[in-house]
Amino acid sequence: MPQTDPARLTADLIRCPSVTPEEGGALLLLEKLLSQAGFDCTRTDRGEVSNLFARWGAKGHVKTFGFNGHTDVVPLGDKAAWTMPPFGAEEKDGFMYGRGATDMKSGVAAFAAAAVDFVQNTPPDGAVILTITGDEEGDAVDGTTALLDYMEREGEQMSVCLVGEPTCPNEMGEMIKIGRRGSMTAWFTVTGVQGHSAYPHRANNPLNAMARLMDRLASHELDQGTEHFDASTLAVVTIDTGNTATNVIPAQSTSAVNIRFNDAHSGAGLTDWLQSEADKIASEFGVEIGMKVQISGESFITPPGPLSDLVSAAVEAETRRKPELSTTGGTSDARFVKNHCPVVEFGLVGKTMHQVDERVEVAQIHQLKAIYTRILQNYFATA
Amino acid sequence: MPQTDPARLTADLIRCPSVTPEEGGALLLLEKLLSQAGFDCTRTDRGEVSNLFARWGAKGHVKTFGFNGHTDVVPLGDKAAWTMPPFGAEEKDGFMYGRGATDMKSGVAAFAAAAVDFVQNTPPDGAVILTITGDEEGDAVDGTTALLDYMEREGEQMSVCLVGEPTCPNEMGEMIKIGRRGSMTAWFTVTGVQGHSAYPHRANNPLNAMARLMDRLASHELDQGTEHFDASTLAVVTIDTGNTATNVIPAQSTSAVNIRFNDAHSGAGLTDWLQSEADKIASEFGVEIGMKVQISGESFITPPGPLSDLVSAAVEAETRRKPELSTTGGTSDARFVKNHCPVVEFGLVGKTMHQVDERVEVAQIHQLKAIYTRILQNYFATA
Repeated sequence: MPQTDPARLTADLIRCPSVTPEEGGALLLLEKLLSQAGFDCTRTDRGEVSNLFARWGAKGHVKTFGFNGHTDVVPLGDKAAWTMPPFGAEEKDGFMYGRGATDMKSGVAAFAAAAVDFVQNTPPDGAVILTITGDEEGDAVDGTTALLDYMEREGEQMSVCLVGEPTCPNEMGEMIKIGRRGSMTAWFTVTGVQGHSAYPHRANNPLNAMARLMDRLASHELDQGTEHFDASTLAVVTIDTGNTATNVIPAQSTSAVNIRFNDAHSGAGLTDWLQSEADKIASEFGVEIGMKVQISGESFITPPGPLSDLVSAAVEAETRRKPELSTTGGTSDARFVKNHCPVVEFGLVGKTMHQVDERVEVAQIHQLKAIYTRILQNYFATA
Repeated sequence: MPQTDPARLTADLIRCPSVTPEEGGALLLLEKLLSQAGFDCTRTDRGEVSNLFARWGAKGHVKTFGFNGHTDVVPLGDKAAWTMPPFGAEEKDGFMYGRGATDMKSGVAAFAAAAVDFVQNTPPDGAVILTITGDEEGDAVDGTTALLDYMEREGEQMSVCLVGEPTCPNEMGEMIKIGRRGSMTAWFTVTGVQGHSAYPHRANNPLNAMARLMDRLASHELDQGTEHFDASTLAVVTIDTGNTATNVIPAQSTSAVNIRFNDAHSGAGLTDWLQSEADKIASEFGVEIGMKVQISGESFITPPGPLSDLVSAAVEAETRRKPELSTTGGTSDARFVKNHCPVVEFGLVGKTMHQVDERVEVAQIHQLKAIYTRILQNYFATA
């Protein structure tokens, strides 16, 4: 009965300097471990991004449990502010330090260790697929998407998938994510007529229209929340003009708003709404308003059911905590996986992610492996 | 009976490259001309600015007519776009070309020529004072202000003053300025709490408050105009944030507004109003709003009366046009002179001022000298 130490594996991964899009040795290390345990491994690199697809068991098996995660990490930030080597995986007071310690080398290590030991110790009637990308933190266009494109081409299918991102705000086991809000950004350019501040009637100040438009958008209540989601939010993130001459009315001003939206909305619907608000202001003020929209991801939900029950039960068994089913937070690669199969996210406490002195409680890595193991056991134990 | 040619004098002045604060030989030239005509000349230079005070007749005479003007000019702008030498004073189709041709070397030349010939040909029982500065286009802190400071120290007093700035929008003689609106700028800094766009409730977006404040200020009607003034105006001239990260709610945003105000307001009163609007928004949104104010000039008026009647009559006699008494436009040094004595402004057509290929109709220079001469004659003809 081999026992793969998930903390040691986490440490080995932290020592790979895999700042997006650098592979840094992390996927090579996992490929070696998984191959030795009988997984079929395929690198599905695309562009400058490295990705690893690994399957144990028969291709196309109706019971195929999937894990998804990433080995790339965000940059160090203020390097001088780190009190521990950022790629050292050193331990102190029960914590292991390093970039990616929580986001999410510990998560990848925990599900890889759980999967390896599970298939070797109690080979199931089914399959286990691991999809691990080297670009979740960057543009994410050649990461999990490339893995899913590969799977579609090859007829590879996960029945369900668990993304191992850190999901717990403060205490291990308190939160499972069953969906995410959508995210989009709209950039506005308001063009009026330049002029002298002393003669505003001869100009058409784009800032009057800009202030009104931004006030309207910021004041609008998109919704009050839905069954599984908090209320959608809109944040005006910047307004810029760059006019230093106080006797000049500028010709143009730009702004950007970011919207996080729940399942009451779609990116297209919100684009229409923004356009109509912009059109109203443009006509009211006699200015031109250009709008460019980028939809980073639509909202999605895996409604509470068999998959969330499975994960909840395992979490509660290991932590004595009944996890909340949440849809809060930013985006993750679950937004891509949801087009492939039901997906939920569960991982450890993410408090220090992206920060200086990122660290993980070593005990949580072991606990996470135990939870993932229990999930695999229970998944394959049912018909 | 000497006859000073105001067009030749304009040409000589244009050939002095007196871009603010360069004297360029312009004041030296005038000092020589005026001294030879019996004017007492004093240079009242201050800082890097050159100024010329010149008086003909007895100091402190109860009938002292004053002229005010400037010899400095704005920079050339796009030098390559000039089709004539900018310091060449070349003539073509009845126009003389050069920087300062309208603003306002022709005006200075016209009143200097008028004053020189007048005092020599028909010496009045009274005095004539010329105050000519080398900085009206720049900061204007060491220009006409320095001249007036000198006069106060020395007990020099003008009974009335005519500023020779170009005042006619299109046709010679159509407009006298009897006052000017005040001008002030306020800079705002709104400080909230930075945060992630996905969690706006954990941040406090300064842009929401900024958009509301700017919309309120821009929408506010300051007044509907007064007896002699157009309505006051407020222009939001810039809003800036500089946040390029669409997933970040910024901590701070800045803006500036410029107000041109009539005699229904004072700089202090408007400062109080702006502060109270900022305070209301700050309390409504729970943000901090800092405000810095600069009052460039208060509004002022020389109500229609003897001085404007004197100038109007002379303009009408020479041009067959009854000039409008106006208070429109930006600021001029009349804002300083008005603290010293009644002041009005009259000059030729200012269409091309500050532009490439600035030019003056030569006939207008002669006409302007004739108007100024008639003003002097009529002023001293009455008791």
